[in-house]
Amino acid sequence: MNRIYLDWNATAPLRPEARAAMLEAMEIVGNPSSVHAEGRAAKSALERAREDVAAALGAEGADVIFTSGATESAALILGGRDLACSPVEHAAVTAWCRAELTSDSMGRVTVPDPAGTTLQLANAETGVIQDLPEGLAASDLTQAFGKIPFSFNWLGIQAGFVSAHKLGGPRGIGALVVRRGTEVEARIKGGGQEQGRRAGTENLIGIMGFAAAAKAAQNDLDQGIGEKVSQIRDSLMAALESGAEMVTFPGRESRRLPNTLSILTPGWRGETQVMQMDLAGFAVSAGSACSSGKVRPSSVLTAMGIAPERAGDAIRVSIGPTTDDRDVARFADAWLAAHDRWRQRNEQRETAGRV
Amino acid sequence: MNRIYLDWNATAPLRPEARAAMLEAMEIVGNPSSVHAEGRAAKSALERAREDVAAALGAEGADVIFTSGATESAALILGGRDLACSPVEHAAVTAWCRAELTSDSMGRVTVPDPAGTTLQLANAETGVIQDLPEGLAASDLTQAFGKIPFSFNWLGIQAGFVSAHKLGGPRGIGALVVRRGTEVEARIKGGGQEQGRRAGTENLIGIMGFAAAAKAAQNDLDQGIGEKVSQIRDSLMAALESGAEMVTFPGRESRRLPNTLSILTPGWRGETQVMQMDLAGFAVSAGSACSSGKVRPSSVLTAMGIAPERAGDAIRVSIGPTTDDRDVARFADAWLAAHDRWRQRNEQRETAGRV
Repeated sequence: MNRIYLDWNATAPLRPEARAAMLEAMEIVGNPSSVHAEGRAAKSALERAREDVAAALGAEGADVIFTSGATESAALILGGRDLACSPVEHAAVTAWCRAELTSDSMGRVTVPDPAGTTLQLANAETGVIQDLPEGLAASDLTQAFGKIPFSFNWLGIQAGFVSAHKLGGPRGIGALVVRRGTEVEARIKGGGQEQGRRAGTENLIGIMGFAAAAKAAQNDLDQGIGEKVSQIRDSLMAALESGAEMVTFPGRESRRLPNTLSILTPGWRGETQVMQMDLAGFAVSAGSACSSGKVRPSSVLTAMGIAPERAGDAIRVSIGPTTDDRDVARFADAWLAAHDRWRQRNEQRETAGRV
Repeated sequence: MNRIYLDWNATAPLRPEARAAMLEAMEIVGNPSSVHAEGRAAKSALERAREDVAAALGAEGADVIFTSGATESAALILGGRDLACSPVEHAAVTAWCRAELTSDSMGRVTVPDPAGTTLQLANAETGVIQDLPEGLAASDLTQAFGKIPFSFNWLGIQAGFVSAHKLGGPRGIGALVVRRGTEVEARIKGGGQEQGRRAGTENLIGIMGFAAAAKAAQNDLDQGIGEKVSQIRDSLMAALESGAEMVTFPGRESRRLPNTLSILTPGWRGETQVMQMDLAGFAVSAGSACSSGKVRPSSVLTAMGIAPERAGDAIRVSIGPTTDDRDVARFADAWLAAHDRWRQRNEQRETAGRV
């Protein structure tokens, strides 16, 4: 039986449009910094891709700086600035900021000083979408980009960062977008690329794949993919809820990404669930995948007031434009069956304890 | 007429083996940090690629840290250390070191304090190969990797860095190699990837392309490609020399890369030559391509004692495994024809001046 991939927030399958653009890019020989015809052709492909990414971000007229991904972009815009942030941010962000802001039980963060704060647009684990205050210093747009419509220019923020692989582009490429002329001190130096803000020969294959994926994701959004995806997600939520009485869905009361479902079953370890689902043919995750297999209680859920001993009992299902009703129905069946086995074992243990 | 690409030191055409490996990588869905089957498959492909790159580098048992390229690798190992270096280094290196060491007229650098110095193995413009002293803190191996045989483990250096795209891999991927256990403080943080030394979801498509290209380059070297390439380069040198009496080849007396030829014609601007050759269908460069079109007198040539007003009169021809005799013969014809026109104009100007 085919496996079913339900971990799109960790990394999304490569879109066919991205694959095609990368094959095209493989034929471009020149270094964009070279002055000969081959170099100029590479440069022109690079700048077209930059325009496509800017358009998909709603960042026309802003500066799009290509990097190796959102993690590098975060370091580039946040490093050395000591901004305030909340523990719901990704580790690539909390590495650089004071995680002192609190979140309410719905996952929403209050920002007293926007110009001194970085705040994500959407959360990787719960999908909760923040209202970004005007003048915000920076925002991690990684999980939102390609999943919900937004425009950088309308958000009123100073800077944002994204990764290609969360919306079906290749891994290893991303961007930092800043209002035109914002000072950004290069962390990788020694060449004039990216207006002196990020040296190194440009990853043209990755960049062209990124641009094609961003464009395709934007088209999907324009055609109402969000509605379709959220219906499938909600049908999964309904199925799980009807069969498992203790289950809750952190963030469900909030505005959130259409594709993300955090599922918490008190007493049933997320890791155990992930392994059981993996054996049953489904890829889901416990929290964010970005810590190399390390499992800690989710700081996202504890920030929402969930007790640390319960925050490890959640899994995340995240779907994408090609996930269909049958995929999530099969997952619901498998999960509910595992859930029943777990509950029965629990009851037997309790009965045994009482005797 | 087909164009002829003679700028391999700026960036090499993608090897078919790299292309094939990247297509294979595009089918791998998982994030290497995910614990499910898809993640484990990605992780295992990643670690196989790491072993292949280590083997090609002769760095078995050392730590290979994947980065977005040599420029990032240089920042990672050199940043904040204030090592000594020479002006023959690439700008990605001189951005971080004191360029105070001198070079002799053959391009060779003397290193009084290896543990406090970074020194390239081969130069991008002249191809000159350095004798790396035992205990050297770091070495830019970028231009040497895949062009001459060497083994990191035998070089006796602490750290080295490379880029994939100089040997036929994709752009946007490279590595830092360090003796096992060397402390490397991450500059891009927020995930446990690369043993905590370089965060961010791994660029698996790029990494697999890199590994395949490195392996293919190593195979080429094992089969004696260096001999073939240097014969073609030397035939070009002989042809130019026989038709242009003032021409010199900086570094020709030194041990140098088999594929690189620096060509200096006093009084004939390198930029002019590059443009004329470009119009005639050949891609060559004036100095290194990495400064986004900026043209300055080559610090490599001035370090060898060539006067600044002459150092701008050089071009670099750099060839690769697929360059053949006819390619360089056609270039020699075109260059000599342009050279004769330039000389005639010069003579007319001098005659006119005398009248």
